Amino acid sequence: MSKPVPHSRADYPHFLPLQTRWADNDVYGHINNAVYYFYFDTLVNRFLIDNDLLRTGSSTGTGGTSDPIGLVVETGCSYFAPLSFPDPIMAGLRVAKLGSSSVRYEIALFAGDETSAAAQGHFVHVYVDAAERRPVALSDKMRGTLSKILAP
Amino acid sequence: MSKPVPHSRADYPHFLPLQTRWADNDVYGHINNAVYYFYFDTLVNRFLIDNDLLRTGSSTGTGGTSDPIGLVVETGCSYFAPLSFPDPIMAGLRVAKLGSSSVRYEIALFAGDETSAAAQGHFVHVYVDAAERRPVALSDKMRGTLSKILAP
Amino acid sequence: MSKPVPHSRADYPHFLPLQTRWADNDVYGHINNAVYYFYFDTLVNRFLIDNDLLRTGSSTGTGGTSDPIGLVVETGCSYFAPLSFPDPIMAGLRVAKLGSSSVRYEIALFAGDETSAAAQGHFVHVYVDAAERRPVALSDKMRGTLSKILAP
Amino acid sequence: MSKPVPHSRADYPHFLPLQTRWADNDVYGHINNAVYYFYFDTLVNRFLIDNDLLRTGSSTGTGGTSDPIGLVVETGCSYFAPLSFPDPIMAGLRVAKLGSSSVRYEIALFAGDETSAAAQGHFVHVYVDAAERRPVALSDKMRGTLSKILAP
Repeated sequence: MSKPVPHSRADYPHFLPLQTRWADNDVYGHINNAVYYFYFDTLVNRFLIDNDLLRTGSSTGTGGTSDPIGLVVETGCSYFAPLSFPDPIMAGLRVAKLGSSSVRYEIALFAGDETSAAAQGHFVHVYVDAAERRPVALSDKMRGTLSKILAP
Repeated sequence: MSKPVPHSRADYPHFLPLQTRWADNDVYGHINNAVYYFYFDTLVNRFLIDNDLLRTGSSTGTGGTSDPIGLVVETGCSYFAPLSFPDPIMAGLRVAKLGSSSVRYEIALFAGDETSAAAQGHFVHVYVDAAERRPVALSDKMRGTLSKILAP
Repeated sequence: MSKPVPHSRADYPHFLPLQTRWADNDVYGHINNAVYYFYFDTLVNRFLIDNDLLRTGSSTGTGGTSDPIGLVVETGCSYFAPLSFPDPIMAGLRVAKLGSSSVRYEIALFAGDETSAAAQGHFVHVYVDAAERRPVALSDKMRGTLSKILAP
Repeated sequence: MSKPVPHSRADYPHFLPLQTRWADNDVYGHINNAVYYFYFDTLVNRFLIDNDLLRTGSSTGTGGTSDPIGLVVETGCSYFAPLSFPDPIMAGLRVAKLGSSSVRYEIALFAGDETSAAAQGHFVHVYVDAAERRPVALSDKMRGTLSKILAP
């Protein structure tokens, strides 16, 4: 594996401030490696919800919807510097690749006013129909919105 | 508030061994107070599933079912002694009160071979219909099964 | 048990906005009952840290400190109405009882602009010395700060 | 990226059964992608603890130790098939690369009696001294133990 180089804020078109929690810290006083993926998850899904590309099903009492589901097929993260509660995190999001039915997101987490990422990762969604779980093409609306945050 | 007295294993009719996780420990090296409720949740729902009183909806792709839903309306826990990863926990379950549409469970967590609880708590379910979220009577089947683990 | 009555915002002197996460939602599309305790934990510890009453030990590499430790001895929560990601939560904090070595906090969680609590709970800290884990008196500084958010 | 091929049980020399929790499932009724990393974390650290290569600091009240710390510098996971509570998981562990101060673990998660992995990932530790956080050589004892689970 080649060693990844920390991205800078200028590499990202979309940001979401993330709040850390007491229990995010592990026994060493830093945020546990798995918790980063809760941040990724939240960042991606908030972007989709805020852009009307994902509906959450709480009002139906079923927790689900009949829309295509974005299955997570791959995730990864490189950790460069520790992050810790109670410090807030600034999370950057970009789309690295738009496939016919898949999206590869890249995410960078920045501590405080730092311009170099403390961690960065990726998150790949494949869209499938809820019933059969077979890949379906991204909608034009989704493709249009995601194109706006495409990495150069 | 009166100070609760630790229960013993003999006070509980049903047990489930629980596995601890690395990230359950907080910065002080002990299991975080909130994580205990994940144990309670798992213990109660495993009991219901294993006794055919709860179906999980994963095969439908919706995450839900049309059955009545057990809403959690109250939980609580008293912590007597620390628990820590990597030690396994033995969890005891009993029903303290069977209402017309509600169940009050009591849970005790035991470390290793200890006979006195390291923590104990309660967990109250109210059953509602999935659509309207109005209370519904416990089924005879549920009442029958839960009666078998009633506290004296 | 007597049924608790939802508190209003006016009952609380201190607030912290809380961010919800995608994975906070359970299979029913609402925030899991255990996750509320991560909110409580974060609210209480942020108050202590922001008022210089708790130092986190991340810079030492040990995750700990030599200060007295606030052990959580009791927690509880009543759930009145569901909360869900992606909605933000406003959390209210007050001190219900200041003992010689203990503090009972009360917490209420409000959805959006709601004035009536969606959930409320309590969280009891007993302060002990880090080495022997025996109760120690609250410092004058702590007592002074906590008095400012005492419930009427 | 090249698409990874699911490993089989025969590819792994060490196993740990993992217990799933109710709250591991997300709104779609499957285990959330981030939770897999809690499994990885637990598997790796349990292996180290069980082989006397990691001491947890709970008895000191500090949560830490003076031993070298294994910092997580990279993690990743490919998801092939869903896993769900309440089903147990069998987790396989192997060492893919032993560096001078780093270890690359590979992990595969198997559902029930399945021989093909439902998910597989990696987890890279770099060992540093607790005070300065500079890389330190793996001990002979660690190198010896980890060699026993080296991938072919």
